[in-house]
Amino acid sequence: MELWYTEKQTDSFGITAKVKRSLHSEQTDFQKLDMLETEEWGNMLTLDGMVMTTERDEFVYHEMVAHVPLFTHPNPENVLIVGGGDGGVIREVLKHDKVKKVVLVDIDGKVIEYSKKFLPAIAGMMDDPRADVRVGDGFMHIAESENIYDVIMVDSTEPVGPAVNLFSKGFYAGIAKALKEDGLFVAQTDNPWFKSDLIAQVNKDVKEIFPVTALYTANIPTYPSGLWTFTMGSKVYHPKEVDASLLPHIETKYYTPELHHAAFVLPKFVQDLLK
Amino acid sequence: MELWYTEKQTDSFGITAKVKRSLHSEQTDFQKLDMLETEEWGNMLTLDGMVMTTERDEFVYHEMVAHVPLFTHPNPENVLIVGGGDGGVIREVLKHDKVKKVVLVDIDGKVIEYSKKFLPAIAGMMDDPRADVRVGDGFMHIAESENIYDVIMVDSTEPVGPAVNLFSKGFYAGIAKALKEDGLFVAQTDNPWFKSDLIAQVNKDVKEIFPVTALYTANIPTYPSGLWTFTMGSKVYHPKEVDASLLPHIETKYYTPELHHAAFVLPKFVQDLLK
Repeated sequence: MELWYTEKQTDSFGITAKVKRSLHSEQTDFQKLDMLETEEWGNMLTLDGMVMTTERDEFVYHEMVAHVPLFTHPNPENVLIVGGGDGGVIREVLKHDKVKKVVLVDIDGKVIEYSKKFLPAIAGMMDDPRADVRVGDGFMHIAESENIYDVIMVDSTEPVGPAVNLFSKGFYAGIAKALKEDGLFVAQTDNPWFKSDLIAQVNKDVKEIFPVTALYTANIPTYPSGLWTFTMGSKVYHPKEVDASLLPHIETKYYTPELHHAAFVLPKFVQDLLK
Repeated sequence: MELWYTEKQTDSFGITAKVKRSLHSEQTDFQKLDMLETEEWGNMLTLDGMVMTTERDEFVYHEMVAHVPLFTHPNPENVLIVGGGDGGVIREVLKHDKVKKVVLVDIDGKVIEYSKKFLPAIAGMMDDPRADVRVGDGFMHIAESENIYDVIMVDSTEPVGPAVNLFSKGFYAGIAKALKEDGLFVAQTDNPWFKSDLIAQVNKDVKEIFPVTALYTANIPTYPSGLWTFTMGSKVYHPKEVDASLLPHIETKYYTPELHHAAFVLPKFVQDLLK
């Protein structure tokens, strides 16, 4: 018998991956969680039938969501991750010596539990002394925070299920309040081939709240279209004004100082979404 | 009944696309040719079970294989396309006023015939007065050409079936001979996630023949991993020394003058393949 995981990324297109075995499957309080051992991608976490991360290509997303904002801010001491229960973003954030504390708030404790169990290379830094991992509602945490964080990363699922609020204008306003006066944030904002309306809407909303708004991309093979976008909103610092030659060295497999800038150079049809 | 086209891009990973109907299917003298009408991508041409082009995302590949080399060469009058029977590269080449003549040599006349029939927006420029479309062996055409072309584009299938020779060092040496003394070429060289050995080998071979060698990428959702590479070999001109601010305007949906440079900034794991 051959098992294949098939994900409809749209109603009429998707990916399929050969599965060695299912490692875990459960309906948590918030979503359907599956951990699969695949041939091509190693262990793979899916939520509500969508790939969240795989051992083989996880480095792209986690590096790009962490290093671009952290190298844009000159002194990112206090960092918040909303979502991100697999621990991949925390691992990358902790590569930055300037970070004194990183708080992670994921609504689903089961994601944290099973990532630690089946994705140890991704989740292994969640017990670091500088990491403060909490199970809770990131939207509420943002609503209750004021002038606390230098950098916030929104590492959410797609805008269905528990993450719907994390794509609302009110949420971005809350982020602005939770950030210090020179703070900045980044959110994953899906792909431009199938979700162009979402990208345009988020860009419009963030622009109305933050003086600096910018979109960058990265190639993630197991995500729809292979081209992922990240939207940054910043009160002061501009990601394109970073002097790449001055950035300290960190170990990466995707991010480079040159790519810090190149990632913001968009294909024309993506540029056109932001008009 | 629902029809789905499923392509194993590797032994254990692939894509799947909902099909409205099969428009044409035949075993030509060289390969299995299928034309499918899909929900997500419009009409789609596959050869030997691999997506070659689709109406919706074809612009990425065709723009990037054409405009990067043509804007690197200061005066690309004579252009050769090896393969490319769908006509997409010719269409883009003809956007350049400096091009006086573009020869296309595809081994399979059926690709040209059925692209004209079912992909008119891609194939519609093959009868242009500046275009000289021939059915023949591109490898032999290169072997018989000397000091003729300014720019050569290798728009081949994967290195299986009729295209095996088009990834050999002897072929690149033939290209060098077919080019004028300041000529340059570009070849599609697959993706870095599943075909890293191929990219490394081609880069090594081209480096031994051409003084200037460079790799660039583009996002093509229907190609394996969504990240495609193009290898350029050049006798004189360097693609990174192009002054993007001086490039004439052409209508595009992916290529921009800024992206001309950004496309050469590689993810670290791709950079590392070229060492």
